[in-house]
Amino acid sequence: MTGRPAVSVSLWDGQEVYTPAVPAVARLRVLDRRALVRMLLRSDVGFGDSYRDGLMEVEGDLVEFLEAVYRGLAGAQPSPARREMMAWLNRPRSNSLATARDNIRHHYDIGNDFYRLWLDERMVYTCAYYTRPEAMLEEAQLAKMDHVARKLRLEPGLTVVEAGCGWGALAIHMAQHYGVTVRAYNISHEQIAFARERATAKGLEDRVEFVEDDYRHIEGSYDRFVSVGMLEHVGPEHYPQFGRLIDACLKPSGVGLVHTIGRNRPMPNSAWIERRIFPGSRPPSLSEMTQIFEPFDFSVLDVENLRLHYARTCADWLERFNHVEDQVERMFDQRFVRTWRLYLAGSVAAFTTGSLQLFQVLFARAQNNELPLTRRHLYAER
Amino acid sequence: MTGRPAVSVSLWDGQEVYTPAVPAVARLRVLDRRALVRMLLRSDVGFGDSYRDGLMEVEGDLVEFLEAVYRGLAGAQPSPARREMMAWLNRPRSNSLATARDNIRHHYDIGNDFYRLWLDERMVYTCAYYTRPEAMLEEAQLAKMDHVARKLRLEPGLTVVEAGCGWGALAIHMAQHYGVTVRAYNISHEQIAFARERATAKGLEDRVEFVEDDYRHIEGSYDRFVSVGMLEHVGPEHYPQFGRLIDACLKPSGVGLVHTIGRNRPMPNSAWIERRIFPGSRPPSLSEMTQIFEPFDFSVLDVENLRLHYARTCADWLERFNHVEDQVERMFDQRFVRTWRLYLAGSVAAFTTGSLQLFQVLFARAQNNELPLTRRHLYAER
Repeated sequence: MTGRPAVSVSLWDGQEVYTPAVPAVARLRVLDRRALVRMLLRSDVGFGDSYRDGLMEVEGDLVEFLEAVYRGLAGAQPSPARREMMAWLNRPRSNSLATARDNIRHHYDIGNDFYRLWLDERMVYTCAYYTRPEAMLEEAQLAKMDHVARKLRLEPGLTVVEAGCGWGALAIHMAQHYGVTVRAYNISHEQIAFARERATAKGLEDRVEFVEDDYRHIEGSYDRFVSVGMLEHVGPEHYPQFGRLIDACLKPSGVGLVHTIGRNRPMPNSAWIERRIFPGSRPPSLSEMTQIFEPFDFSVLDVENLRLHYARTCADWLERFNHVEDQVERMFDQRFVRTWRLYLAGSVAAFTTGSLQLFQVLFARAQNNELPLTRRHLYAER
Repeated sequence: MTGRPAVSVSLWDGQEVYTPAVPAVARLRVLDRRALVRMLLRSDVGFGDSYRDGLMEVEGDLVEFLEAVYRGLAGAQPSPARREMMAWLNRPRSNSLATARDNIRHHYDIGNDFYRLWLDERMVYTCAYYTRPEAMLEEAQLAKMDHVARKLRLEPGLTVVEAGCGWGALAIHMAQHYGVTVRAYNISHEQIAFARERATAKGLEDRVEFVEDDYRHIEGSYDRFVSVGMLEHVGPEHYPQFGRLIDACLKPSGVGLVHTIGRNRPMPNSAWIERRIFPGSRPPSLSEMTQIFEPFDFSVLDVENLRLHYARTCADWLERFNHVEDQVERMFDQRFVRTWRLYLAGSVAAFTTGSLQLFQVLFARAQNNELPLTRRHLYAER
């Protein structure tokens, strides 16, 4: 094992091959020797695939097991040669205009019915915001959308462009409750179709326009720019282009917000996540994100790290997912269930242990002085 | 003129040599041809020195004049060759252990009596925090110290180390009102002497220790790290060392805050400011600041940009300074008065026009989960 995680490992014949110095929180049972070979060759891709294929089981809580592994890894460093080989083997897919659509469809177009089983009723698939510990997922997703709207100081009549709009919940919420006009872009066909239907059902079709196109084709001039949970799919090599796009479409008195999973330092995504869950994805560090803002003289006004909120969101998703595993298996198969269980549990662990962050970055043009004195308005009672 | 600022320029014989396309907010009267030569050769050093020496006068409001110049400059770019020559001519002084002391004494050891004339009663020489538009400087400096203390979630019994403590106001405030024990470092002899005297007068000498030494010599282990208005003097080449120092002295559950003047992108300080006001100084961009945090796996929790608060703070200082110019001239001379007037007015203009920023960055270790869910506690009524 890399590092010294607080888990034990046993083999198919019951032999204990690893016992931690501290009490183990869970046990990994390797059921098939092929799992060992895969892990040796492909590290976390080998681990994830072996779990998916049932070559391994975790006895005990899966999240606690993964947290222990993450905590153990935090201190360990692979050799430079191995790191380089792994980086090459696990190099991320590109996000050119052509491949981006494939990358996005891989994850988001597997069926709205599947996501409806375990997301909240509004189908918000990004970090929620728990303003009180006992908040439920529905309340926390609403609070997140209001938190974003307040940071953007939305007012009736303003125009908003949204890059990457998921199933349209935020766009619809902003139009319905803040009186703004929204144009929202997304390359996922399934999500756009769903979002349009919902906007029409709410009678908002003249205030929210859903465009099935790449964010790189955004046109027009807007008072507000917002992107929640899309930057993970953009890739750092495209950040200057992303900044140029914002520069081109934001009015002089405009304000923008980018909400993204992040890292404490530049590093590749988990190779298994990048291969099996989110092709082409890479959560940025703050230093990488500054490549969006610095070339265009944007002033960063506010950065908030909501890491523990995403740990809680993923834990809520995992709990709901566990309740519907039988249905999911009927829709897909057992391997799909195991893949998604590992992905959701691994996400909880990554946020709990500080391996992943969640950054909300608010920005404006350098000479924009129409700014509130304090952030108190974010915390006013309704 | 570089760019197209909204100011007019006349020569010693009354000749108008530059008229802007828009109505001029003020007029620069060049009284001596030596000023032109100096500006040609040394750009803003030539401008500043010529103003200091009375070779130029500004008719109209000095701040408005400088704001117009900053706004005009924002669009203009000097040629690469000129930029390179200027960078070399105006290369900043180093901040090695030996020169840092000289650099700091140049500014901070010119006499507590001088600063007492125009700073607030607590002698706080950093950005204040105006929670309401009509707040006075005294109230705003108190609010700033409380804002910092709340971000750090100070509690009785915690230990705090402060890197660069000025005249000790924050250290004393934290010990007096939050029940913490503080060790505060500063290499300015005059400031340390003043701070010690005040701590003794308040009977806090067993809870606040002032150490006349470089921040690089900080020893021990603390619950909180705080540095307000010192990073400007550290220099980006020393940021990894600064981060290593924090890493060495912050407990696992520790939290830290760095408050600094900043930039929207990496760029040298105004050469005149660097030469005549703050030798060795350089306000960092956020990308530069990440060199403090990323190598040591610190999580950035909160970044707040208080730019407009520093514009207001400098405007308050300038107004007070203008009232005591006669006394300052008797203490020093006319050139000193003109230098400081230009520095304070230029600072107002730099913050108003977005040339300078003010970043407060709160951070913790990656695995520290003892974090508040929201930032609401910063805005609670007392």
